This record gives sequence, structure tokens and C-alpha cells, in this order.
Amino acid sequence: MSSVPTATISRLVTYLRILGRLEAQGVKKTSSEHLADEAQVSAFQVRKDLAYFGRFGTRGAGYTVPTLRRELRRILGLTRPWSAAIVGVGRLGEAILNYPNLGDYDFAIKGAFDIDPNKVGLEHGGVKISHLDDLPRIIREKGVDIGLVTVPQAAAQGAADALVRAGVRGILNFAPTILEVPHDVHVEPVDFMAGLKRLSFYILNPQLREELA
Amino acid sequence: MSSVPTATISRLVTYLRILGRLEAQGVKKTSSEHLADEAQVSAFQVRKDLAYFGRFGTRGAGYTVPTLRRELRRILGLTRPWSAAIVGVGRLGEAILNYPNLGDYDFAIKGAFDIDPNKVGLEHGGVKISHLDDLPRIIREKGVDIGLVTVPQAAAQGAADALVRAGVRGILNFAPTILEVPHDVHVEPVDFMAGLKRLSFYILNPQLREELA
Repeated sequence: MSSVPTATISRLVTYLRILGRLEAQGVKKTSSEHLADEAQVSAFQVRKDLAYFGRFGTRGAGYTVPTLRRELRRILGLTRPWSAAIVGVGRLGEAILNYPNLGDYDFAIKGAFDIDPNKVGLEHGGVKISHLDDLPRIIREKGVDIGLVTVPQAAAQGAADALVRAGVRGILNFAPTILEVPHDVHVEPVDFMAGLKRLSFYILNPQLREELA
Repeated sequence: MSSVPTATISRLVTYLRILGRLEAQGVKKTSSEHLADEAQVSAFQVRKDLAYFGRFGTRGAGYTVPTLRRELRRILGLTRPWSAAIVGVGRLGEAILNYPNLGDYDFAIKGAFDIDPNKVGLEHGGVKISHLDDLPRIIREKGVDIGLVTVPQAAAQGAADALVRAGVRGILNFAPTILEVPHDVHVEPVDFMAGLKRLSFYILNPQLREELA
């Protein structure tokens, strides 16, 4: 296996969310058709996405919900704990620090950084805000794997550089800019302005929406 | 043309951001190679994405920056103004209402709704918070096209239903749930927990990252 389409990884995350809901409802078995329907893709797509990672389920009998859920959690790396740190505690940073579901998936925010002396020392969502200067030390001490960049656009590359130098291997980037990072660091952009722009395209061109194959 | 891949639309948004920066720098000409390099895709991909919408640029001479930028803005529907309303003014809603760059693209937030009587009547980023009960009237009065859903997960479908009944044609969904909407309404999810999960996959499986073709 040389690579997996990024869209497949995004859909695995969606399937996992659906399986979590089914398991909470006490549903024991499901099918590619049902997952497809919930995820708004085709059953063929569901089977193809799963096939990258092995054989799941039994032809005609579908999937066992807890088993498939466990397998997807394993594939996505969610069976181990992850430590994150956030750089930039403006309103968005505060919103994330107080996001109630963050802990559900064994992602814990262990550090928060800002340069505003009025913020340093405050606490949000149980995390103390430290000065950016202390980032390298705290990232190493707490074994942080993932950095969240929630600073203004102009400060984003600097924040990413500091996180990379301190040893993080992945960055969730909320700033509307493309970050330059070494090849072994992965960046996931979270750009809601991009979402707004895609939305305007699809509102104006509903006939060009990608059909469910 | 029967459909355009959603990934293409996402990349057009990225190319547009790059072109905006080039234009601000006074750069007059660019190439698929340069755009590809900045967007971290292949030059072939850039040309293929643009080819869905016509012929741009001249073989060997590349693209004229302001022209291509104007064309992309037109394709994405960004040459007309868009009105949005936000449902749910918690920390995330507040962060969005105060997002400094929102106005740059002719997206204006015209309404904000919550059910908390302590919030109704307050103002954030120049937008007055109204009670959810007033949503249908205000959406119609202000000609709102797009709804932003920033309520907790359990309230998201209800918020979407209210927006759809009031006539919005697109929803930007920040709640970690799949919204059911009529076929003629488009939903763009903004799920940063999904981004965290993709990140964990790529940190653990760097060799499975999709190569730039």
C-alpha cells in the first residue's frame, strides 16, 4: 500500500462517528449500505475505503458494530492517548480550550501559549496559559505530539516553526494560511472561510455538486 | 459538465488565496508550477482543476494574476455579496462574530441567534444577538443566504431545520454531527475534531500520506 486518499481518511472519521452513535444506541450489526446512507456516500465507497486496511465484516452478514468501531479507532490511531498544545488564546483558542467533547477521544490539551502578559497565568478549561517563550520546555516536559495554531494569520508561520522546533509531529492550523513545515510534520488545515467559499459555489451551482457514485 | 470533485473546489479556494497574496505583492504573472508549489499539489492537478471551468492562461506564458484571480472569484461566486446568520453564540460563535477577516470576501454576518436570555440583546462584532424565535423573521428581512451552526451537537439538527425553513440555501456546520437537509440545501462541515483524528492517522502512518501526483 503506497498511499491512502486523504478523502478516505476523512470518511473513516465519519464512519467512526456513525459507529459510535450506533453502539450507543445498542445496535449490534450494520452494513455498508447503512453506513453509506448515514455518511451520504455510496456503499461501494464505504467498502473501497475499508478495503485499504483489510477485510472487515462478512459478505451478506455486514459488520459487527463494536468490532468495526474498534478497528477504525485502531487504524486512525485513536486507541492511544494524544497530547496537544494550543498557540494563541484569543476567542477561538478559548472556545477550543472549553470545547466539551475534546476529551472523548483521548486528545488532551496539555499546554496553552500566548504572548499577551494579561493572559499568561490565566486558566481556561483547566489549562494554564503560559508565555510563548516557555513553549519548548513545556512541550518537551508534557510530551506534546500535536500543536493547534490559533494565532492571527501573520503570526501563524512563527507559531508553527516554534512547535516544529519543539518536536511536535502534527499541526492543526486554524489560521487562513498555508504553513511550511518539514516533510515529516503533517498539517491539517481548519479553515472555515474556505468552507464559506465552497458553500457559495455550491449554492450558485447546485447541478455541479459531486454526485454520490 | 455533470459534476466537479469537491476536492477541486477546495483547491480553487486555495489557489485564490495564493493569487490574492501574489496580487498584493504586485506579482503580475504566475504559472501552474508556481501555484502547485504553493498549494502543495502537482502542476498537472492545477491545470486539471482549472480545466473544469474553461481555458485560462497561455501555453508557455502562464497566467495573468489579476485575471485568473477575478475568474476564480467569479467561479466561486465571490463577486456578489453573501449574507450569513449564526445560530449559537457560545465561545465559538463569539470567536466567529469577532473574526477580523470575515468581511474581506463580501460575507457579512447579518444576524446572530441564541436561546439564552442573558445573551439576547448583547452585541458581538457589531451584530446584535436575537432570540431564536425571531430567526424566521430576521432571516427573511435581511435576505440571509447562509447559516452558521455553532450550537452544541444535540441542538444542531434543530438549528439547521429552523434555518432551512427560513429559506437559507447553505449551512456551515461546526457541530460534530451530520445534518439532514433537503437536496437543494448544501452543508459544509467544519469539524476540527475530524482534523485531529486525521492528524493522528498521518502522524502514525507518514508513509501512507497521499503523494503529490
